[in-house]
Amino acid sequence: MSELVSRAQELDAADELAPLRSRFVLDDVVYLDGNSLGALPAHVPGRVEDVVRRQWGELRIRSWEESGWWTAPERIGDRIAPLVGAAPGRIVVGDSTSVNVFKALVAAVRMAGPDRGEVLVDATTFPTDGYIAESAARLTGRTLRPVTPAELSSALSGRTAAVLLNHVDYRTGRLHDLPGLTAAVHAHGALAVWDLCHSAGALPVGLDEHGVDLAVGCTYKYLNGGPGSPAYLYVREELQERFDSPLPGWNSHAEPFGMSPSYAPAPGAPRGRVGTPDILSMLALEAALDVWDGVRVEAVRAKSLALTDFFLECVAAYTEPGRVESVTPLPHAERGSQIALRCADAGEVMKRLIDRGVVGDFRHPDVLRFGFTPLYVGFADTERAARVLGEVLG
Amino acid sequence: MSELVSRAQELDAADELAPLRSRFVLDDVVYLDGNSLGALPAHVPGRVEDVVRRQWGELRIRSWEESGWWTAPERIGDRIAPLVGAAPGRIVVGDSTSVNVFKALVAAVRMAGPDRGEVLVDATTFPTDGYIAESAARLTGRTLRPVTPAELSSALSGRTAAVLLNHVDYRTGRLHDLPGLTAAVHAHGALAVWDLCHSAGALPVGLDEHGVDLAVGCTYKYLNGGPGSPAYLYVREELQERFDSPLPGWNSHAEPFGMSPSYAPAPGAPRGRVGTPDILSMLALEAALDVWDGVRVEAVRAKSLALTDFFLECVAAYTEPGRVESVTPLPHAERGSQIALRCADAGEVMKRLIDRGVVGDFRHPDVLRFGFTPLYVGFADTERAARVLGEVLG
Repeated sequence: MSELVSRAQELDAADELAPLRSRFVLDDVVYLDGNSLGALPAHVPGRVEDVVRRQWGELRIRSWEESGWWTAPERIGDRIAPLVGAAPGRIVVGDSTSVNVFKALVAAVRMAGPDRGEVLVDATTFPTDGYIAESAARLTGRTLRPVTPAELSSALSGRTAAVLLNHVDYRTGRLHDLPGLTAAVHAHGALAVWDLCHSAGALPVGLDEHGVDLAVGCTYKYLNGGPGSPAYLYVREELQERFDSPLPGWNSHAEPFGMSPSYAPAPGAPRGRVGTPDILSMLALEAALDVWDGVRVEAVRAKSLALTDFFLECVAAYTEPGRVESVTPLPHAERGSQIALRCADAGEVMKRLIDRGVVGDFRHPDVLRFGFTPLYVGFADTERAARVLGEVLG
Repeated sequence: MSELVSRAQELDAADELAPLRSRFVLDDVVYLDGNSLGALPAHVPGRVEDVVRRQWGELRIRSWEESGWWTAPERIGDRIAPLVGAAPGRIVVGDSTSVNVFKALVAAVRMAGPDRGEVLVDATTFPTDGYIAESAARLTGRTLRPVTPAELSSALSGRTAAVLLNHVDYRTGRLHDLPGLTAAVHAHGALAVWDLCHSAGALPVGLDEHGVDLAVGCTYKYLNGGPGSPAYLYVREELQERFDSPLPGWNSHAEPFGMSPSYAPAPGAPRGRVGTPDILSMLALEAALDVWDGVRVEAVRAKSLALTDFFLECVAAYTEPGRVESVTPLPHAERGSQIALRCADAGEVMKRLIDRGVVGDFRHPDVLRFGFTPLYVGFADTERAARVLGEVLG
């Protein structure tokens, strides 16, 4: 047995999160794509069946009240809150990440006031953030300026209304300095909007602690909510009364069943709602969040770093020097929960990895992505993935 | 046996749609709230279980391709198309009705051009349409003017950019003249946007035939897609290339996996997509649409009118004169698939009806709503509902 194999066994044996793996439906594949679609928690199918057969099928319309459908967006928001460092009442679940980015950015620009004409967007972010930011800027009469997070400090000015940043770069896995960048944005009197899609559930975020103004995220990656499960929107407590949504649907009305022709926004997190939420996806997500009961995000982060460190060590041991290059930073303070390796023929290499039971993904033009979900990926999985990669690269 | 009871039996025996009732999960309750949440088609739970356990649980990320998740919004749009008189390629499914109203109205205003400064909205419509229209007008620098459908002709002018109308009034059940009003809007060079929430699946709509520009609708009422199932967006073929979405998410990009920082819209219906769609709700809807295979919308409409006629006849027979007043028009050309009765103590009356197994709903301040879903409501149900109403009203 190689030294790395025995090290993996020791690390798995000492892993306080290892028992959580049994709560997921997994097979012999090494699933390193939870940063794209989280695995299925084993109890979710039964809960979904109850929602469909009993809540919809038998109670029907009564479920809006009796099964708690109506209050699900805020209730599930409160379940996500501790994972991103937010107090209750600040997060509402619903719609897609893109739609929530739109709500957040338009609202941020409005709160910044009419004298601030520029919106800054992370130029390295997941494309949808840039597209939606462009639309938000166009509709509010502002100018959009893409900047890298490194350029941000020099780009900020008294003209900046709002800044949309991604906590972790989806392609490279680079973790950005949320506390420092938020403080820089605030120092110029602008609002900071963060996209947490690639960080929530993998590392501490500290939204309240760091004074983040607005944040959005998806729930189908490290939160394992299921394909296309609803996204969420965080609004800092002090800003909630001024949150002026560009999507004021009847679900965000102060009295939704008053059916008034004039709009009056609900107080608190429900102000971020829009129309009728998709209950099946919403309640599948709620069930999925049960696996977090009693789990400390700090323990998740510690394991995540240990996994990615170990993966890099194994890759170095099993792969010819120079065959791949990590584009993920080595310092822990700059690393999310994935390793991205630049590699010739990356698309073809990933196909062969998947054929051999190591599931990551490929990002155009030359990046292999390996996502490490600490709740269900172990060290033996990690050693195996690196070993198979070495074999595939030959 | 009363004459009405035997009439109901005869009508049920002659009903070509009667066999469809067995395709739904129903109990001894008379369910007249399918205009709010449709009943569960019996085969849906099994299909949802397959989506959760096999497609998500076993195939995981592979399902985006292998289980057809990626193309679901357009594929399911094509399933809805014949029910609203649209050719394939014109409807995309996703997001809520409210979000789709926003896409449609902003896009319509942009297509109308900068010289048209006024947006008209149906003043009697479901509240969310008015709230979202107000937001769309505000963000595009137009003025919003609420008008009743009856006032529309005199309100239209060369300044009108777009008009948002509801096909059926959610409160009174009044059916508006879609062909005539659309023609009037077009005669003034404006665009017509229709909300089909209370008509699709209950009566022929004829979007293509009548030249409707854009339309939106929910799928959880007469289409039985489940609680909060995704809404849809129709864009007339000739306008698709000019459809400029205010919510350009990565799912509507011409090359979503090119991950380009600049946005280029997809051709056709996918241009109406935004972010990652909620797959569980989406595929539950797809399954639910199976009950429409081989069903003619004209037969549904004929039965719907027969049911509402019969209900009014039974109510007249069983209820003291003057105790309730129908606010739903008597002429067939002005009636959707519900009957709304104005009644003193309507809230309390509806509670007692529900206690006695007749499920409709109450709309503030004094309206009892009874929705008739022709796929699963029969004439005996209808007679019973009217009889219990008569007893409750004493």
